[in-house]
Amino acid sequence: MINVVKIGGNVIDNPSALESFLRDFARLEGKKILVHGGGKEATRMSESMGIKANMIEGRRVTDRATLDIVTMVYAGLINKRIVAMLQSMGCDAVGLTGADGNVIPATRRAAKPIDYGFVGDIDPAKVNDRFIASLLDEGAVPVFCAICHDGKGTLLNCNADTIASSVALGAARIGETLLTYCFEKPGVMSDVDNEDSVISVITPDSFEELKEKGIVAAGMIPKLQNALKSAREGVKEVRICRAEDLLSEGKGTRIIAE
Amino acid sequence: MINVVKIGGNVIDNPSALESFLRDFARLEGKKILVHGGGKEATRMSESMGIKANMIEGRRVTDRATLDIVTMVYAGLINKRIVAMLQSMGCDAVGLTGADGNVIPATRRAAKPIDYGFVGDIDPAKVNDRFIASLLDEGAVPVFCAICHDGKGTLLNCNADTIASSVALGAARIGETLLTYCFEKPGVMSDVDNEDSVISVITPDSFEELKEKGIVAAGMIPKLQNALKSAREGVKEVRICRAEDLLSEGKGTRIIAE
Repeated sequence: MINVVKIGGNVIDNPSALESFLRDFARLEGKKILVHGGGKEATRMSESMGIKANMIEGRRVTDRATLDIVTMVYAGLINKRIVAMLQSMGCDAVGLTGADGNVIPATRRAAKPIDYGFVGDIDPAKVNDRFIASLLDEGAVPVFCAICHDGKGTLLNCNADTIASSVALGAARIGETLLTYCFEKPGVMSDVDNEDSVISVITPDSFEELKEKGIVAAGMIPKLQNALKSAREGVKEVRICRAEDLLSEGKGTRIIAE
Repeated sequence: MINVVKIGGNVIDNPSALESFLRDFARLEGKKILVHGGGKEATRMSESMGIKANMIEGRRVTDRATLDIVTMVYAGLINKRIVAMLQSMGCDAVGLTGADGNVIPATRRAAKPIDYGFVGDIDPAKVNDRFIASLLDEGAVPVFCAICHDGKGTLLNCNADTIASSVALGAARIGETLLTYCFEKPGVMSDVDNEDSVISVITPDSFEELKEKGIVAAGMIPKLQNALKSAREGVKEVRICRAEDLLSEGKGTRIIAE
């Protein structure tokens, strides 16, 4: 079993929550991989340097200055802090971008209709599972940030959820893989105001029903579509849960292909 | 044969010199490792963020803010740019700090007599040669920046020349190792104003003579002492040459133990 765990920016931004999460992650047995988001540090850094965020339709454009900042903050500061913390917990972390070992080749997104700048899209079939397998076989724990490259010398900003699903699909070619998305809610809820309304299992059929009835929050739909796609394409199970529930197997929402 | 090559900040700061150097490095045959210095980017970054360099007796103190900046710039920006460039040249680079895979454990320097802050010293005997060997056996090319860790969760700023000699001594336990320091001069010169005065070979005996006669520039003495130490402790040969001469085996100064 290979555990691929994605941790989001809200935990990254909270030092004590991050430390507590990493302690749990370090205790996970067997082969494992961590994927981390960015948090607000890149925005703070841009602001302190007087670089203004360039937004189109509510989405950030990664211009050259922003690419340099996210590379510094995600691949440098956050990734290496996490690696050093995991190492101190006896977990043999190795921090990676998609450029290292060409482990996640990406393609720069077309400039039409909207030019988002240095942003990359990933084909999970191209994830270098041989390199991941060699690290896992050595007992190492790959820790990915969401920076990739185009293979032509240019780094690209990617979506951390997509990195997680792509890495999980790559890992699934090595062995049975479980993908866990840790976030701030206890799972997918049928009532957003009631934390006791977590839906324990979602299948392709039940997802259609939840969607039709308007039970799932709009913001969860792309996340669930992505999770179902991962499950259909080879990941044994996708789980969405709170960071604090990483080690509580029964908690959260399981997304399975059948 | 394992080639360990150190490239300094002056080349890092010059994009066309860096690209040309990396093209040569990519063409080096066999197992190889790159170690890079920092360049002036960290200073520029600090200035743009209004962080003042804290100097004691002409040496920079790595306080918490400076540690964050060098981690971002060295381990993030510069390391990943080099990795992406090498990948585009067909060289399977993997960027590392000493924390990744616990490959270079360091010890924080004592705060007495002078507290240099988050600065690390390295015991070459502790370099994780098993991890380096596994990467080299995979055909990967480790690319080190000068950030290490103390194993207790704290990153440390280290000297890139020391990283290079420590990695070379680790590599020498795997196989015959050649360490090349690339810098802006054609080698160790007997007359600093005459580039034709390169001393082709230095041994422990000839070093003593050069030192006594005051032929070697004061600034070169610690570099040469370090090189001779590496040669005595297992590196087959240390070469000091211009970055442009990396592939010209006869050029520069060879430092050997006998």
